[in-house]
Amino acid sequence: MDLIRRNALEVVPEEDLAKKLERSRSTGTPLIVKQGFDPTRPDLHIGHAVSIRKLLDFQDLGHQVVFVVGDYTARIGDPSGRSETRPRLTGEEIAANATTYAEQVGKLLDLAKVRVEYNSSWLAPLQLAELLELTATTTVARMLERDDFAKRYDEHRPISISEFMYPLMQSYDSVALKADVELGGSDQKFNLLMARAVQERYGQEPQVALIMPLLRGTDGDAKMSKSYDNYIGITEAPEQMFGKTMSIPDALLDEWYRMASGLSGDALASAVARIAAEPYAAKRALGELIVGLYHGEGAAAGASSHFDRLFKEHAAPDDLEETTLSLGDIRLKYADGTMWVPGALVATGLASSNSEAMRLIEQGAIAIDDDKVDDRNARVAAAEGRVLLLRRGKRQYARVLLIG
Amino acid sequence: MDLIRRNALEVVPEEDLAKKLERSRSTGTPLIVKQGFDPTRPDLHIGHAVSIRKLLDFQDLGHQVVFVVGDYTARIGDPSGRSETRPRLTGEEIAANATTYAEQVGKLLDLAKVRVEYNSSWLAPLQLAELLELTATTTVARMLERDDFAKRYDEHRPISISEFMYPLMQSYDSVALKADVELGGSDQKFNLLMARAVQERYGQEPQVALIMPLLRGTDGDAKMSKSYDNYIGITEAPEQMFGKTMSIPDALLDEWYRMASGLSGDALASAVARIAAEPYAAKRALGELIVGLYHGEGAAAGASSHFDRLFKEHAAPDDLEETTLSLGDIRLKYADGTMWVPGALVATGLASSNSEAMRLIEQGAIAIDDDKVDDRNARVAAAEGRVLLLRRGKRQYARVLLIG
Repeated sequence: MDLIRRNALEVVPEEDLAKKLERSRSTGTPLIVKQGFDPTRPDLHIGHAVSIRKLLDFQDLGHQVVFVVGDYTARIGDPSGRSETRPRLTGEEIAANATTYAEQVGKLLDLAKVRVEYNSSWLAPLQLAELLELTATTTVARMLERDDFAKRYDEHRPISISEFMYPLMQSYDSVALKADVELGGSDQKFNLLMARAVQERYGQEPQVALIMPLLRGTDGDAKMSKSYDNYIGITEAPEQMFGKTMSIPDALLDEWYRMASGLSGDALASAVARIAAEPYAAKRALGELIVGLYHGEGAAAGASSHFDRLFKEHAAPDDLEETTLSLGDIRLKYADGTMWVPGALVATGLASSNSEAMRLIEQGAIAIDDDKVDDRNARVAAAEGRVLLLRRGKRQYARVLLIG
Repeated sequence: MDLIRRNALEVVPEEDLAKKLERSRSTGTPLIVKQGFDPTRPDLHIGHAVSIRKLLDFQDLGHQVVFVVGDYTARIGDPSGRSETRPRLTGEEIAANATTYAEQVGKLLDLAKVRVEYNSSWLAPLQLAELLELTATTTVARMLERDDFAKRYDEHRPISISEFMYPLMQSYDSVALKADVELGGSDQKFNLLMARAVQERYGQEPQVALIMPLLRGTDGDAKMSKSYDNYIGITEAPEQMFGKTMSIPDALLDEWYRMASGLSGDALASAVARIAAEPYAAKRALGELIVGLYHGEGAAAGASSHFDRLFKEHAAPDDLEETTLSLGDIRLKYADGTMWVPGALVATGLASSNSEAMRLIEQGAIAIDDDKVDDRNARVAAAEGRVLLLRRGKRQYARVLLIG
């Protein structure tokens, strides 16, 4: 129980999990532990890894992990056309994404012991009569309790009836699998609990919802997500992982140590205790830990010295702000591979706003690598790994490493 | 246009109907005029006949009337189990009910020219992907505008998501038929208008909703319906029809003349004008008109004199209240074929409440056919057509004809 509960945000309800674990032990029947996978997003990042490592805990205890590939909805897309986040994929794209996903997950747990199911196998044959049965399992009021629905309904923004079908379909996945436990982020809590009610209506024992925390992204603002360009993919190169970790705000260090470093127990406690006094050293150590988790310890040391080497290639004053700039940030990078200079000045703190940055350029106060910038909309070549020395006036400098 | 509009409560929108009629005339293509039929209720009453006669108008103008038998929903029942009004039927029951229905409709229009479609033929093959497309055609807010949904939502009474599917399924019937016009009672207005929006989403020209008024039942309280036991079936015997018409409250006469007498123009106007001065004569004339519509004029005269004969068989005082009692009234009739005397005293106005009626019996003040009643829960045999003389005290009488 303690192992399962560790790092979980919530277990709903705890007593059901205890009961299921106890029964599983006494009967020798493994629990069915469900994890959904959206095949429109095959790239796993280190935030997903929090859940995957929890599945590893279940695997280590002898339970059956089942990945449910949501191929059905990926294949039909969103008929309301409202959601750009749910594109329509072909069967080949879905298969390719599932393979990519499996390769990544394989870095974290034993794939040979994982069952993979495609939800089209039970959703595609459903007919209207069965669907009416499924839609009879819940009420409009219950559905409108979901935060995003409630908000949109209150604000008189349209909610298509088809949107009500998605939580029901996800719940039906749990019915089809007779799931005992489902893992999901806190944004999935409503759906995971709805599945409990639906399973009961189908005469099944309801699953336990294991709610995992969402890791915040490198920007510290939002949950880690490819669509916010604030993520570290688990297949990224050691140098990328290290550089991106170096770019996170200090305020994230505690959370990242707990969820993404792989440390636990005393090692975690002492690492966390040091953050306040030595944030820069703590960040470097975190970067090495993350690289070590996905690429081994040797890679960690290499990535760390690579980071230093890039900086040392350029001479610089002693009182220098060293930082990284992510080229993933759409406010900075153009499609032609150049970076917008005023944006970079704001991102490094040399200017407080785009308009101030432009005014400084017009005043001749800005230089890059000792060349004065004179176009207020100047762009510079922005290859990954490039180091730029930005200067404001005579004394303010920022040395930035461009990362992916 | 005038013919079509006559007796209709609303045509939504009028200009679309004008356009469709005009195009039909110029291209020689008949309009598809849809009328739904709920096979769980095969018995047509004279309220339904208002719509059916409207279909006859379309037939006379050369348009194609299509009866849609709602066999799909009748076969699956209501999975929410909430509605007792939507029982689950077998294929044989549906076929038998459809035959019964056809026989009755055949009394009013030319069945050889009517197309009959079973909605299972397009609903049964629907799969989840198509259903998601259908559910994407409308929004939760729009659905909650329907009066009964709005009321229940406001009162925090549960609405199953499956209930949202029924208006969509009915709308899909219109898509499958490419309906130009759909007829329905005012309680169907929401569904008929939703079909317009759904057809547009499927790239079709939306149908015109022809809203027909609902005839109130013999009790004057609610719409005519078998479930309220306040109806006159179009296959009932002439004597029944006449007797039940004699039992309606005077306040219904105007409405029934307009909707159920078959009269129009000047004949209708002069019949209606006479109601206030001679309600009893007007009611008898209405009874004869209704019998005449469904059984021919000869039958009308027969039913009328049968009514008189039944009363004359029993001697009675001159200042007598003559009335009918419907054995369909569940407050009166028991399953064993007997009628509860206190209830009959209240129904005829001889007592103001059941408790007063019981007290009068205990005081020895009540007699039936000159036999004193002494059991406060007395029952009497209640065969149709029987005439009873109820007496309270020495002077108050009611002579009642028991009808079905």
